[in-house]
Amino acid sequence: MNNEKYSFYLNLINENLSSYVPESLNNQDVISEAMLYSLNIGGKRIRPVLTLEFCNLVCGDYKKALPFACAIEMIHTYSLIHDDLPCMDNDDMRRGQPSNHKKFGEANALLAGDALLTHAFSAVSSANDVSPQSIIKAVSILSECSGVNGMIGGQVLDLKNEGKTVSSDELLTTHTLKTGALIKAACVLGCLAGEADKRQIESAGLYALNLGMAFQVVDDILDVTGDEKTLGKPIGSDSENEKTTFISLYGIDKSYKIAKEYTLRAVDSLSVFDNDITFLKDLAFQLIERKS
Amino acid sequence: MNNEKYSFYLNLINENLSSYVPESLNNQDVISEAMLYSLNIGGKRIRPVLTLEFCNLVCGDYKKALPFACAIEMIHTYSLIHDDLPCMDNDDMRRGQPSNHKKFGEANALLAGDALLTHAFSAVSSANDVSPQSIIKAVSILSECSGVNGMIGGQVLDLKNEGKTVSSDELLTTHTLKTGALIKAACVLGCLAGEADKRQIESAGLYALNLGMAFQVVDDILDVTGDEKTLGKPIGSDSENEKTTFISLYGIDKSYKIAKEYTLRAVDSLSVFDNDITFLKDLAFQLIERKS
Repeated sequence: MNNEKYSFYLNLINENLSSYVPESLNNQDVISEAMLYSLNIGGKRIRPVLTLEFCNLVCGDYKKALPFACAIEMIHTYSLIHDDLPCMDNDDMRRGQPSNHKKFGEANALLAGDALLTHAFSAVSSANDVSPQSIIKAVSILSECSGVNGMIGGQVLDLKNEGKTVSSDELLTTHTLKTGALIKAACVLGCLAGEADKRQIESAGLYALNLGMAFQVVDDILDVTGDEKTLGKPIGSDSENEKTTFISLYGIDKSYKIAKEYTLRAVDSLSVFDNDITFLKDLAFQLIERKS
Repeated sequence: MNNEKYSFYLNLINENLSSYVPESLNNQDVISEAMLYSLNIGGKRIRPVLTLEFCNLVCGDYKKALPFACAIEMIHTYSLIHDDLPCMDNDDMRRGQPSNHKKFGEANALLAGDALLTHAFSAVSSANDVSPQSIIKAVSILSECSGVNGMIGGQVLDLKNEGKTVSSDELLTTHTLKTGALIKAACVLGCLAGEADKRQIESAGLYALNLGMAFQVVDDILDVTGDEKTLGKPIGSDSENEKTTFISLYGIDKSYKIAKEYTLRAVDSLSVFDNDITFLKDLAFQLIERKS
């Protein structure tokens, strides 16, 4: 994602994320440290960038959505910390650095994840430039998309399917929940911050789910064709773990076509917006060409 | 807690709690099952009862606070599930039943805790009979009281102090955060649901913190003097784990006096309320005479 607007949003998010982590008032600093460690370890920040841009698209003022954008990234970060724990994926490294529990111990990592999830909702409730009705709707959407029939549900399916061959339908459901739901929350919360109408909110949701699926297909492709250095993680882990992926179901060429179809569908859904959709369109196309 | 009104509230909570656990739409039923298992395993339900009664005290209609009351119990339940995990207290039993991870495995227990925390905020956002401003305030208070400078912070201090002798100040801080903060959220959310004024909200907070401390002192006393059968858990674990408690600092008789002082302070703080405070007064006194 190589353009000026993206960098501008990215910097804004990086500059503001830490302000939503409370200072420890009673000698329990390790928890804030652990939260900040994983928040500040970097990443593409695609989700919060989407939140800011959808708000911008709807009302011309991305700043209104900043608390929502940071909340989304906090939820994403908590999910990575908990996913890395020994009882889940047991990953020692994340983005080239020791994972949270390797750095702070399992108990603190568990609690840092809990705290990021908890304070994500403080962040949402602190959005001063958004109407009370939209804040409440944002709390509701964020919890639904992160919950049993969203991100957590996807993680449950992923665990359940480990080592099993799953059907293409099951693979789609798992990714829709595990990856798509939070991206949907990101886009919809941006719309809510901009006081979008119902049709705009629905279209943002469609864009998100298609973008999320394209993103996941490319992830599967990169696990086969990627460069370990550029990716920052070992390749070939999916086939090693005998995971059903788009590649194992369709092969590389067909998978690339599928990713492109999802991208076109994502872009199509933006037609209801009157303003300039170039950024969101370019972002979708850049995501399928990414190398990491 | 042996009276008709308490039983009425308790039944109302038990009848409604499950409705805030979403049905699994995609074959990930185990997560809902795991959430319901710990929610329905019982308990005194003191926190949500306080939420309902404070709402009743302020506006005469406890029903308005039901979504908030259930949210509080969901947060309490998530904290118990995560506390029992092997990387935390590693407890195999909870209320005489296998703890969540013993029943559903560590990964599902972790996710069930995450999901209860997540959907607690859905519950808050669903409070139809409460003003938007009070719902947003409730989200804010609930996350602050459950977060870094609340319940999670208390858990961090508790882990940090394991096996160490701590000062009475540190003991007070730990309990204020670990136990007091969520009881405070329970009382304050009840006030918010009833659209209380600032003075009432402050008094409810004071009642809660003093009640929470009395509760904790009695917990320490029961760990020495209690009956294992009535308690449903082994006694003597504090001294076995060389934990600093009110007993190790002050002995039994002085600790009982301290619990009584906190209770009197709790009751005193209710003087700003014009309506009948008998229930909250009796509840406070019954809590220090409890045997389990």
